[in-house]
Amino acid sequence: MTYTAPVDDIMLALKAAADLDGHLSRGLYDGLDADTIKAVIEEAGKFGTDVLAPLNAPGDKTGSKLVDGKVVTPPGWKEAYKAFADGGWVSLPGDEEWGGQGLPEIVAMATCEIWNASNLAFGLCPMLSQGAVDAVLSHGTDYLKKTYIPKLVSGEWTGTMNLTEPHAGSDLGALRTKAERQPDGTYRIFGTKIFITYGDHEMTDNIVHLVLARLPDAPAGTRGISLFLVPKVLVNADGSLGARNDVVCASLEHKLGIHASPTCVMKYGENGGAIGWVVGEENRGLNVMFIMMNAARLGVGVQGVSLAERATQHALAYARERRQGRTMATKGSDMAPIIEHADVRRTLLTMQSMTQAARMICMATAAATDVQHRGATEAERAAGLARTAVLTPIAKAFSTDIGMEVASMGLQIHGGMGFIEETGAAQFYRDARILPIYEGTNGIQAIDLVTRKLPLDGGKVVMAYIVELERTVADVKASNQPAFGRMAERLGEAVAALKEATVWLGGALQKNPEAALAGATPYLRLFGLTAGGAYLARGALAATREGHAPAAITQARFFAENLLTAAGGLSTTVTSGADIVLETTAAKLGA
Amino acid sequence: MTYTAPVDDIMLALKAAADLDGHLSRGLYDGLDADTIKAVIEEAGKFGTDVLAPLNAPGDKTGSKLVDGKVVTPPGWKEAYKAFADGGWVSLPGDEEWGGQGLPEIVAMATCEIWNASNLAFGLCPMLSQGAVDAVLSHGTDYLKKTYIPKLVSGEWTGTMNLTEPHAGSDLGALRTKAERQPDGTYRIFGTKIFITYGDHEMTDNIVHLVLARLPDAPAGTRGISLFLVPKVLVNADGSLGARNDVVCASLEHKLGIHASPTCVMKYGENGGAIGWVVGEENRGLNVMFIMMNAARLGVGVQGVSLAERATQHALAYARERRQGRTMATKGSDMAPIIEHADVRRTLLTMQSMTQAARMICMATAAATDVQHRGATEAERAAGLARTAVLTPIAKAFSTDIGMEVASMGLQIHGGMGFIEETGAAQFYRDARILPIYEGTNGIQAIDLVTRKLPLDGGKVVMAYIVELERTVADVKASNQPAFGRMAERLGEAVAALKEATVWLGGALQKNPEAALAGATPYLRLFGLTAGGAYLARGALAATREGHAPAAITQARFFAENLLTAAGGLSTTVTSGADIVLETTAAKLGA
Repeated sequence: MTYTAPVDDIMLALKAAADLDGHLSRGLYDGLDADTIKAVIEEAGKFGTDVLAPLNAPGDKTGSKLVDGKVVTPPGWKEAYKAFADGGWVSLPGDEEWGGQGLPEIVAMATCEIWNASNLAFGLCPMLSQGAVDAVLSHGTDYLKKTYIPKLVSGEWTGTMNLTEPHAGSDLGALRTKAERQPDGTYRIFGTKIFITYGDHEMTDNIVHLVLARLPDAPAGTRGISLFLVPKVLVNADGSLGARNDVVCASLEHKLGIHASPTCVMKYGENGGAIGWVVGEENRGLNVMFIMMNAARLGVGVQGVSLAERATQHALAYARERRQGRTMATKGSDMAPIIEHADVRRTLLTMQSMTQAARMICMATAAATDVQHRGATEAERAAGLARTAVLTPIAKAFSTDIGMEVASMGLQIHGGMGFIEETGAAQFYRDARILPIYEGTNGIQAIDLVTRKLPLDGGKVVMAYIVELERTVADVKASNQPAFGRMAERLGEAVAALKEATVWLGGALQKNPEAALAGATPYLRLFGLTAGGAYLARGALAATREGHAPAAITQARFFAENLLTAAGGLSTTVTSGADIVLETTAAKLGA
Repeated sequence: MTYTAPVDDIMLALKAAADLDGHLSRGLYDGLDADTIKAVIEEAGKFGTDVLAPLNAPGDKTGSKLVDGKVVTPPGWKEAYKAFADGGWVSLPGDEEWGGQGLPEIVAMATCEIWNASNLAFGLCPMLSQGAVDAVLSHGTDYLKKTYIPKLVSGEWTGTMNLTEPHAGSDLGALRTKAERQPDGTYRIFGTKIFITYGDHEMTDNIVHLVLARLPDAPAGTRGISLFLVPKVLVNADGSLGARNDVVCASLEHKLGIHASPTCVMKYGENGGAIGWVVGEENRGLNVMFIMMNAARLGVGVQGVSLAERATQHALAYARERRQGRTMATKGSDMAPIIEHADVRRTLLTMQSMTQAARMICMATAAATDVQHRGATEAERAAGLARTAVLTPIAKAFSTDIGMEVASMGLQIHGGMGFIEETGAAQFYRDARILPIYEGTNGIQAIDLVTRKLPLDGGKVVMAYIVELERTVADVKASNQPAFGRMAERLGEAVAALKEATVWLGGALQKNPEAALAGATPYLRLFGLTAGGAYLARGALAATREGHAPAAITQARFFAENLLTAAGGLSTTVTSGADIVLETTAAKLGA
C-alpha cells in the first residue's frame, strides 16, 4: 500500500479554513494563484509517492546506526535527500534574497504534510533546517547570514536545534552547557545535548547546529541563556570547508519509532571547546529559540495530520480488501469486505473527519503566519501574529493527539494483522507516538494556550475568534441544507460550550490560576474539536456552493453529529472538575 | 521501577463491586473468608514482584525465537514457569476433583491481574491453558479428562487455542482446516493455524492444542465446525509420553509487542495427519469454543487492568522523581517534581481512576461467574449467567481500551524519555496494543453487547442492571458527603444517559438493526464509563463507612466530575449519530 497525496482535501482546507481566495484577491500572495499552488502540491505528491514513501518501511527496519563515530542513515537516504534538495523542495519556502523560492507558509505546510506522510523519519530533517534558517535570518549577523543561509536554503547543508539536556527538557532554564567568550569574538562551547534530531549524518558535507548555552556570568534561569551557531565543519573565509569542529555524536537513542531518524547525544568541547558564534544578543537566546520553536510547533502539528492521513489511507485500502463476516445486506455465503460493517465505517469516518479537521486547523494557522509576515498594514500583520499565537498550541497538540489516535484506529482496523510489523500499521502507531511529546509536550501546549494565549489583549483575541465560529454556526443554519443533518445544532452547542469554558477560565486566571491550569488539557481538546468542526462546516458550505464531491459534507456532518457531541462534557470538566485535581496533592496520589 | 501488587485496591474492588461480603455471608465461597483471599493475593503479589516482573523487560528485548524448529523462550522463562506451577499458581482455580485448589473466579482474576501486570508475555501462557481445561472438562470424554486434565490443572503441561486461519479471523465460519475420521474413533487433522499463542515452547514436556476444524461432510459456515484435542506428543495408555504428533511450529510472528510470547504459525498434518480427538459433538465445536472464549475474554479484560496498573505505577514513580519547572507554589529556584504540576496530577488521577474503574468491572464480572457456577439455586445461577453475559463484552473491551489509553498517558508523563525504549514505558504501550484486538476485537465486543446481550430476556437483564446503578446514585445522594463533590449529580446524569441510549437501541434493534450497530462502540464506552463510575462510587461509600484511605473517594469523585462528563455526549452520538454512518456507503468513503 503506497501513499497518494490528498490534493483535493488540502485544497479544500486552503479554501475553507485558510481563506485562500480572500488572501489571493487581497494580493497577500503576490503573483501566485490557486492553480499554481495546486500544481506545486501535485508535484510534491509525486515526489513523496515515488521517492520518499518507498523508503519508509525499509528505513524503519534498518534504522540509522552509529558506525565508527559516524551516523549511517538507511540505504537510499542520502540519494533521496540529494534529489529532494536538487528538486528545489528545501528552498521552496526560503527567502528569495538568499536563493529561496519565496513560497508562502500555506504551501510550505502543504508540502510538509506530504513529506511527513510519505516518510516521517525523513521529513524531520528539512523541518529542523528551516528552524535554523529562521533563527539566523531574524537575529544573525551579516557574517552568519552570508556564510550559512544560502547553503541552508538550498539544502546543501542541514541544520539542527540543540535545546534539551538530561536535566533540562521542558524546563530550559535548567540547562548547563557552557559558553566561554574568546578574544576574537567567537565562543567556545562545552556540554552535552540529548535528543538531537539528525544531530549527525553523512547526507550533507556540513551541519549547522544551533545550540543553547550559558555564559559564565549569565543570570540564573531562562534569562541567562544564549544561542550559538556551531557548525560541524568550520567554514573558511572563502566559503570552503575547513577543519572539523569539536562536536561529535556520542551515541544514538534506541527509540519506539522513527528509527531512521538519528536521535543523537551530542558532545561539545571534549577537545578544547567547539567554536561557536552568538545568534542575537547574549542572554537573549530564548527569544530567538522561540522563533524556531513556534515554526517547528506548527510543523509538528502538520506531522500529526501526515500520520493520520497515511494511517487512514492504509486502513481504508485494507478495509476494502479484507473480507470477514456478513452484513445484514450480504447475500449468500460470501464474506463481505469489512468496510461494509457499520462499526468499521464509523471508525473510518472518524479517521477521515478527524484528519481533515486537524489539517484545516493547521492550514488556518499557516495562513495566519502568512498574514503576520506579508500583511499589507501593520494592523493586519499584528492580527496575523495574534491569530498565529492562539492557534499554534492547538495546531500542535490537537493535531498530534489526532495523529496518534487515528494511527491507533488504523491498526485496529487491521485486526490481528495490525499487530504484526510487516503489515505497516504498527509503524505508523509507533512513529506517531513521538508527536505529542517533542517541540513542547501537549501538556505544555495546553498550559501555553490557557496562561499566555487566552489573556492576549485582555482575552479579546480568543473572543474574536469565537465570534467567527458563531458566524459559521449562523451560516450553516441559514444554508438550510437537509444533507447537513444536525450539523448546525451540534456545532452551535459546541461553540457555546467553548465560550462558556473560555469565560470561566478567564475568571479563574484572575482568582485561582491553578484551577485554570487543571483544566488546560480538556480545554485545548474542546477548542480543537470546536474549531475543527467549524472549519469542516465551512468546507461543507464551500462544497455545496461549488458542487464539490460530497465527502466534505459527509465528514462535516459526521464530525458534528458523532464527535462534537463531546464538547459539552469537556466544558463541564473544565468548569467544574478542577477542585478535586487541586485538592489531590502529590502525597494523596499514593504509593 | 518494579511492580507492587495493589492489594488494597483489589480488595476494595472485591468488596464494593463484587459484593464479597454478601457472597461470603451467603456461603457462596464455602470455607473461604476475606482474610484468606487477601493472603492469597499478597502471596501472588510477592511471586509477581520477585519472579515475574524482573523478567519482563529482558524478555521483551530477547523475545522468543524459533531455533532449529524449536521455540526458545527468553532466559529464565522455563525456570519461572516451573516455579509458577510448583507454587500452585496454575492449579489455583482448578477443580478439586482433578487436583486443583478450587478457588473461585474472583481469586483467579485477582491473581491473573498480578501475573499480567508483572509480565504480560508470561501471563498469557497459563491464561490459555485454563481455557483448554474449561473446554475439556465441560465437553470432553472421560478418556480425555483422565489423560489430560490432571496435567493441565497442575501446570505440568500447557494448553493452546487454535482458532484463527489467514482467511478466518473474526469470522470463524470461513475456516478450512480439515479433520478426517479414522476407524479407531480418532481423527486426522490437516491445516494451518496462525496467531497461536505459546503454540510451541520447551517449558513443559507436552502441549495440548484445542483445534477448530471441519469434517468432510460438515455443513458450511459455523454450523460445520468441530473442536479437536491434538497433543504435541501422543500419550501412551499408561500416561507416559509416546511419539511426536504431526504438528509443528512453522514460524513466529514479528510483533509490535509481547515479544517474549511466541505467536506461532502451526502446521498440522504435513506428514500424514495430526492425530486428534473430538471434544464434544461433531459440528458443535463452536459452542465448546465459546466456553473457552468467554473465560478468556474476561481474562483479557483483566490484562487491560494489569497494564494500566503497571503503567500507572511506573509513571507515578517517575513523576515524583523528575523535576522540571516551577509550580505557582514553588519557592526559590528549585525545580518542582512534575507531580506538583496540575496537568500532570490530572493525568495521574485519570490513570488511577480509570484503572480502578476497569478493575471493578472485571471483578463484578468474575463474581457473576462465581454465582453462575456456585449459586445455591437454579434461579441464582441463571441470574449469574445472565449478568456474566452482559458484563463480559464490557469487561473485555472497556478495560483493554483503558489499558491502552493509560499506557499511552504513562508514556506521555515521561516526556522525551518515554519514547526511549530503555525507560520501559514504551514496552507497556506496545504490549497493551494487542489487548483490544485478540479474543474478539473490541468492535466485535460492542456488536455482541448490542445484538446479543441487550435483547436478553427482552431487555430485562440490562434494565435490571441499570436499576442497580440508579440505586447507587440514590445511595450517593443520600450519603450527603461534602467530600463527594458533584459525584451524585454527574453519576445521575451518566446513568440517565445510559438508560436513554439503551431504550433507543432497543427500539432500533426492532426497526433498523444497522442503526444499532452503528452506535455499538460509543454505547459500550458509555456503558463502561457509567458502570465504572457507579462501582467507584460504591467504593467511596464503603470507604466512608469503614474509614478507609481517602484514595477511594478521590478517585470516585475525580472520575465522576472529570470523566463521566463524557456520558451525555456519547448517548447523543448513539441516538442521533447513526444516520450519516449508514448513508455513507463504502463507495462514498472515497479513494
